[in-house]
Amino acid sequence: MRRSRALRNVLVGGVLLLAACAAGADSLESWNDLPAKQAIIRFVRDATTPDTTTFVPPAERIAVFDNDGTLWAEQPIYFQFVFALDRVKAVAPKHPEWKTTPPFDAILKGDMAAFAAYGEKGLMEVMAVTHAGMTTDEFAKTVSDWLATARHPRFGKPYTELVYQPMLELLEYLRDAGFKTFIVSGGGAEFMRVFAEKVYGIPPEQVIGSAGELEFRMGADGKPVLIKLPKVNLIDDKAGKPVGIQRFIGRKPVFAFGNSDGDQQMLEWTAAGPGTRFMGIVHHTDEQREFAYDRKSSIGTLDKALDEANAKGWVVVDMKEDWNRIFAFAK
Amino acid sequence: MRRSRALRNVLVGGVLLLAACAAGADSLESWNDLPAKQAIIRFVRDATTPDTTTFVPPAERIAVFDNDGTLWAEQPIYFQFVFALDRVKAVAPKHPEWKTTPPFDAILKGDMAAFAAYGEKGLMEVMAVTHAGMTTDEFAKTVSDWLATARHPRFGKPYTELVYQPMLELLEYLRDAGFKTFIVSGGGAEFMRVFAEKVYGIPPEQVIGSAGELEFRMGADGKPVLIKLPKVNLIDDKAGKPVGIQRFIGRKPVFAFGNSDGDQQMLEWTAAGPGTRFMGIVHHTDEQREFAYDRKSSIGTLDKALDEANAKGWVVVDMKEDWNRIFAFAK
Repeated sequence: MRRSRALRNVLVGGVLLLAACAAGADSLESWNDLPAKQAIIRFVRDATTPDTTTFVPPAERIAVFDNDGTLWAEQPIYFQFVFALDRVKAVAPKHPEWKTTPPFDAILKGDMAAFAAYGEKGLMEVMAVTHAGMTTDEFAKTVSDWLATARHPRFGKPYTELVYQPMLELLEYLRDAGFKTFIVSGGGAEFMRVFAEKVYGIPPEQVIGSAGELEFRMGADGKPVLIKLPKVNLIDDKAGKPVGIQRFIGRKPVFAFGNSDGDQQMLEWTAAGPGTRFMGIVHHTDEQREFAYDRKSSIGTLDKALDEANAKGWVVVDMKEDWNRIFAFAK
Repeated sequence: MRRSRALRNVLVGGVLLLAACAAGADSLESWNDLPAKQAIIRFVRDATTPDTTTFVPPAERIAVFDNDGTLWAEQPIYFQFVFALDRVKAVAPKHPEWKTTPPFDAILKGDMAAFAAYGEKGLMEVMAVTHAGMTTDEFAKTVSDWLATARHPRFGKPYTELVYQPMLELLEYLRDAGFKTFIVSGGGAEFMRVFAEKVYGIPPEQVIGSAGELEFRMGADGKPVLIKLPKVNLIDDKAGKPVGIQRFIGRKPVFAFGNSDGDQQMLEWTAAGPGTRFMGIVHHTDEQREFAYDRKSSIGTLDKALDEANAKGWVVVDMKEDWNRIFAFAK
């Protein structure tokens, strides 16, 4: 009796395992069956198989993803920066003085070299007028309206279609295995939250990003609002990523994916924990289907983190080789 | 055929509803069957009944709770403050100069009046030496060690047993109905995260609190650490609570529970959203079983928020009347 029950348990376990493997292979269909995909499947199997030394308790299954260049494209320039420039142009009629005021004059003339010459100060002034001085609801609406109409210059598609199909499958695959998926990005949290739930299935409370200070004010109508202030609270990039992770999540992730030197510290922080871990980097190697860039690129520079990945055996995804599809629209 | 299926659906629905009601009544057993409990049950039924105008989609089921005085006791003084004083005493042997240095001299002499006279500056200096200058892991260990040995002066129990049994039941009841429960407290996030998961079933990533700046450093052993700095990032109290909610959660809660004027803006922010909402206040009215205090108390002052609750019909829990049990240890 006991023996036959044990046998049945083994058989049932085996069937479940086969089913899980089949589901895994299936749901990562845009990944070619190469070492990167195999490492992902092995990690999930290790983390979720009970009664093993590699098992990760469900509460600790925290997976973090960079956004720009990891979940969606970031060339020829960060999409949020395009949003900011478009906002400057949209509100310029209300600011006739901008025609002769740096850095706005350069933007309105379309002279990006002149704008770049204004450096960080110019960028901060643009952020101040496009990302502050309004309520959080008003800001979300401008982002939403922009996403509905703006098109990527090369692909002619809405920016929210420039998301990587293999990464969408990976997010889903991890969630199906009981992982909580977070974005940890240098991009603005309030910007990403407008589309992250719909596009990635990641709710606002799992979106960590750069953010400014907020001020609570009671409106004249008795309705409170939160005003976005032109003052930085967190730059969630480089060494700011582990800070953001600790502040928002409060424990080390066991899985992290990035694509640039801005993600290096997040990957190091993830790697520093005990037990089963996964550190991955998306390497942009496909100029035909997307873009090819790494060490010399000013957007999404991948140099030191690539060296560290190679030295430490982190998984480096070669987009050209590992992904049989990049965007859902390009079949 | 279609008719009988419709009938069966109605019957099954009815049984499920009855089961839900029974489970609801059962799982809030420390609550007397009075208007506060009835309002909670009605809110959850409204929020979770599909195809009604009161339905709240699962993703929007965000419930926020203050901690001190709402989930656990806060008298005769905030527990985290006791921790800070105990830490000063514990490390004093390494700081012989403290015997003659304010505000530490007052603490070491046990002269709380003299300490209070140093005001906010004294408090900030105590926070700096007890909550900063160590790694996040080191800090968590000091909290954990303290919680294991410290006892409440009146009840003689570990502080983590000073949690309100009816609120534990409420947290569970809401989670069973698909709500995500968050702490939004003026207390320190890193302090609360040490016990919140075990005591409340609230994971670290759902604990929002006051917090200092962090610095990422690579250790000599190649292991990165985060150092707690003596610089404030967020005071998650009063108008800081809606700021913390927006920064961490990114959407308005539909359910909020507090107990003091420090929670007023959080309750207003919750009330400002559309649709089904619940705003509740714990009123400390039971000096026999716990403590009785409100408008005149320096700890957990409840004055303006009580007026607003009464004016707007928010639920005010009378601990003496509404709760048939306060602490699990006091049967």
